[in-house]
Amino acid sequence: MELYSNHISRLIQSLSSLPGVGTKTAQRLAFHILSMPEEEVEKLSESIIDAKRNVKYCRECFTLTDDEVCPICGNPRRNHNVIMVVENSRDLAAYEKTGRFEGVYHVLHGAISPMLGIGPNDIKLKELMARVAAADIEEVIIATNSSLEGETTAMYIGKLLKPAGVKVSRIASGVPVGGDLEYIDEVTLLRALEGRTEL
Amino acid sequence: MELYSNHISRLIQSLSSLPGVGTKTAQRLAFHILSMPEEEVEKLSESIIDAKRNVKYCRECFTLTDDEVCPICGNPRRNHNVIMVVENSRDLAAYEKTGRFEGVYHVLHGAISPMLGIGPNDIKLKELMARVAAADIEEVIIATNSSLEGETTAMYIGKLLKPAGVKVSRIASGVPVGGDLEYIDEVTLLRALEGRTEL
Repeated sequence: MELYSNHISRLIQSLSSLPGVGTKTAQRLAFHILSMPEEEVEKLSESIIDAKRNVKYCRECFTLTDDEVCPICGNPRRNHNVIMVVENSRDLAAYEKTGRFEGVYHVLHGAISPMLGIGPNDIKLKELMARVAAADIEEVIIATNSSLEGETTAMYIGKLLKPAGVKVSRIASGVPVGGDLEYIDEVTLLRALEGRTEL
Repeated sequence: MELYSNHISRLIQSLSSLPGVGTKTAQRLAFHILSMPEEEVEKLSESIIDAKRNVKYCRECFTLTDDEVCPICGNPRRNHNVIMVVENSRDLAAYEKTGRFEGVYHVLHGAISPMLGIGPNDIKLKELMARVAAADIEEVIIATNSSLEGETTAMYIGKLLKPAGVKVSRIASGVPVGGDLEYIDEVTLLRALEGRTEL
């Protein structure tokens, strides 16, 4: 017995290919979409294909953007001599939301992960080296995630940039602000201890 | 500072209009969509607009379907004299998955809710009455949800159908199979007690 008609089944199947969307959620989304006004549905459908077709990588930092150069790299008021290296555009957005970083970014699009078969050549490392070689870079701040892959990538970049004589730093790892020590894992607690600063 | 380019922002905004999708989830979905192969993205985009454009209500039971009459209403082997009344097509699918109900359905597309301003005329009740009047119906099984709205709707339908002399029943309310009494609310426990059957 077919539970849903062809069109609905196809929609449910497409939606359930998205991350974090199981069959139940896909069903709920599909029926919501069917109950939306047609122009809203058109907007949704078009925004999906438009984004895919028109978004490209920034020539400088490789973040996803509509133009050749992203608004951050194209902004002359940013400090182009300080580069923050992040794993992806979402991490860039996270730092950008703080509104306090005035340098530019470099988006790796991944992290080194032997488990997933992602090596140094599969992320934008050559491009980072080229940027460091081409301009007078003051500092490279490595803001990859604090995961095994992120740390591996950070160490790798550190070694890679050492011969270039550029200052390389790593964002601090420790207890998150507002965090209760009781609920924080031991590795983080040890990191916080190692990274202690004098008051 | 614009965090994302126009196309990405539009996509995130469209996605976050879906139920249960907040800004963070919308961002995650958007970046996932951007990382998908173009033909997959086309499929997703098309399945959305296709479903919206081609899905209509079944002439008989008002479930969502591709044709004039849904596969269930069009199946001569179903018992067309027993109608199960459900709130929406998802509930129909839930019962259909059991594979044990051999009658047909009637989809109300909502439940009476004075809070939301949904009255008897806003759901497919007139159509139910017309079906009961037109054919020789043995039984109407009311399978609206066990919520305030669902119960109100059930009672209302019961009263409405009484003069027609048709048998009207309500699905049982009680402890779900596998449920642990300890964790079940008092109203359900009382319902289960009231609805007890002799062994």
